[in-house]
Amino acid sequence: MKQPLLMDVNNTVFLRGEKLIIVDRRGLPAQINELVCADYFQVARAIEEMAVQGAGDIAITAAYGLYLAARYWEDAGNPSRSEGRDYLQAAYRRLVETRPTGHHLKTLLDKIMNGLEDEYSLSAWILSRIKQAIEIQNKRSEATGRWAEQLLADGDTILTHCFPGPALLHMLAMAEAGKKKIQVIASETRPYLQGARLTAWSVSELDIPVTLISDNMAAYCMSRAMVSKVFTAADRIAGDGTVANKVGTFQLALAAQYHGVPFYVLGYGGPDRQCQGAEDIPIEVRDPNEVLFCAGVKITGDRVKGFYPAFDLTPAHLLTAIITDRGIFPPSLMEEYWSSRP
Amino acid sequence: MKQPLLMDVNNTVFLRGEKLIIVDRRGLPAQINELVCADYFQVARAIEEMAVQGAGDIAITAAYGLYLAARYWEDAGNPSRSEGRDYLQAAYRRLVETRPTGHHLKTLLDKIMNGLEDEYSLSAWILSRIKQAIEIQNKRSEATGRWAEQLLADGDTILTHCFPGPALLHMLAMAEAGKKKIQVIASETRPYLQGARLTAWSVSELDIPVTLISDNMAAYCMSRAMVSKVFTAADRIAGDGTVANKVGTFQLALAAQYHGVPFYVLGYGGPDRQCQGAEDIPIEVRDPNEVLFCAGVKITGDRVKGFYPAFDLTPAHLLTAIITDRGIFPPSLMEEYWSSRP
Repeated sequence: MKQPLLMDVNNTVFLRGEKLIIVDRRGLPAQINELVCADYFQVARAIEEMAVQGAGDIAITAAYGLYLAARYWEDAGNPSRSEGRDYLQAAYRRLVETRPTGHHLKTLLDKIMNGLEDEYSLSAWILSRIKQAIEIQNKRSEATGRWAEQLLADGDTILTHCFPGPALLHMLAMAEAGKKKIQVIASETRPYLQGARLTAWSVSELDIPVTLISDNMAAYCMSRAMVSKVFTAADRIAGDGTVANKVGTFQLALAAQYHGVPFYVLGYGGPDRQCQGAEDIPIEVRDPNEVLFCAGVKITGDRVKGFYPAFDLTPAHLLTAIITDRGIFPPSLMEEYWSSRP
Repeated sequence: MKQPLLMDVNNTVFLRGEKLIIVDRRGLPAQINELVCADYFQVARAIEEMAVQGAGDIAITAAYGLYLAARYWEDAGNPSRSEGRDYLQAAYRRLVETRPTGHHLKTLLDKIMNGLEDEYSLSAWILSRIKQAIEIQNKRSEATGRWAEQLLADGDTILTHCFPGPALLHMLAMAEAGKKKIQVIASETRPYLQGARLTAWSVSELDIPVTLISDNMAAYCMSRAMVSKVFTAADRIAGDGTVANKVGTFQLALAAQYHGVPFYVLGYGGPDRQCQGAEDIPIEVRDPNEVLFCAGVKITGDRVKGFYPAFDLTPAHLLTAIITDRGIFPPSLMEEYWSSRP
């Protein structure tokens, strides 16, 4: 077994000299294209255009955007630290608006911006924060995967949606190491096909059997007892256990409830402290053209409009449990995360 | 308003000289490609490869395949009528196996084959049966659309899946004529995109506002009160009200029930007399490659398998009503169709 490319953000988002390299996820797995970002504008655009995905990886990529901004300021020989912070503030505003639904982006950028005061080298300090964030994220992914693995039984077939991130891969790798035979069904996740391109491919890299379905086939598979458990990630979790995740998660949860199939959310670092419930989570609506075209081809008539809400909200009562780095929580007790030990 | 191409099967499946022309639905709306079928083998392949779709239109196309077989036999100057029937029997067997889930195909071919006995010209008799079947189908579509239109209220937004056939277009055209303002949301219907290519396009040809979504966005739209009613078709209806239709219908019905959105099935000619319930309906499983590729491009890794059940089964209790040419039926009383007046 080789480690899947997407198990560690360091494999796909990294510095090369003074440039940020992003392995463009839109081309995977057929093409491993490197996107080279020389400044924070390019980083912001890469995030908006979905060259990178997953709330945690988006946050780290955006932080690298701040880093490029700080380097630019320093390399230009600008001496005033207060002006430097103003410049970073502009970069912050550009980057923080790229993707509104996940909270990790704003949380990480705020943490970096709030700690700038007493640092001599802005860029060095930002880079140290990025390295720390990556380390925390990798540990969280592994810890979340370890808790999740306990929920798996030998012979399970799990259904996923979108790309639930490294925790899913850790969970599967640990189950495999523990001699549990697991199979995976991945829903393709239109329109960006993350389930097909990222999840199914990554799972196959682990030598675990994986089957791809279209998004509309999940309930049928459940009705034929083909699915033991569902696992998705979350782009944001509210204090009341509401989960924002890739659009389609909600209707999967409805199908799972009807069939009595347990529905688990890989919640990594837990809920957003700023967010009490569904009404506090903004849903990103993307360019309708992303729905009207498929693989570059217009798939409908010229007078047809498109609508592309990128995320949806699944209420806590449809979820069996939310799995975090600190343990497994009933969704209605999600706020207990804060008082539990890391 | 011009009549949408797909409002009448005569527009897309017709004889030209001794050949059957099928306007290939896989290219619509961008390309109007004519598939020319010289024999029943080519007709069978065109049906299998989904150049034509919709249970009624598939049946008529297959009947044209029988017609081509009869013509071939007659043109070769073969005198024995019993051998002619044997030849047709072989064509029947090939054609009847093309698509197992819809019952219209077998029903129509059986009707034709059972009536062959006393006819002098096999081909002339088959052609007369085809013309009759088309006439019945067109009348049924219009009658079904007329009943369905009574369920619409001014201001409704209806959600559809796959291409529910001409009854949907009749319903919308009648509502428009009656000054009801209706909008449509069409789910794209992966992997063949009938919702995008056929439904959304056809509705736009009626000058009715239509918005395309991916299949995974329906529950989100319902949660935002964007959907007043759902309308789908049925490839087969069982006596107990179970509906077989394009895969994805079932999970739409689950989402509709959760949100209290009425779910209507355009049932045209009613239930299959041979079919008591779900267990009597075979679900066609198609080539996995149709899921693994999108617009000709492989969308996942080489070690990923695909699974493509083309239909699913929606139980009667999830449906609000089934609308036929003979009126509107509660799904649990579907068998009343037989005793009601045409």
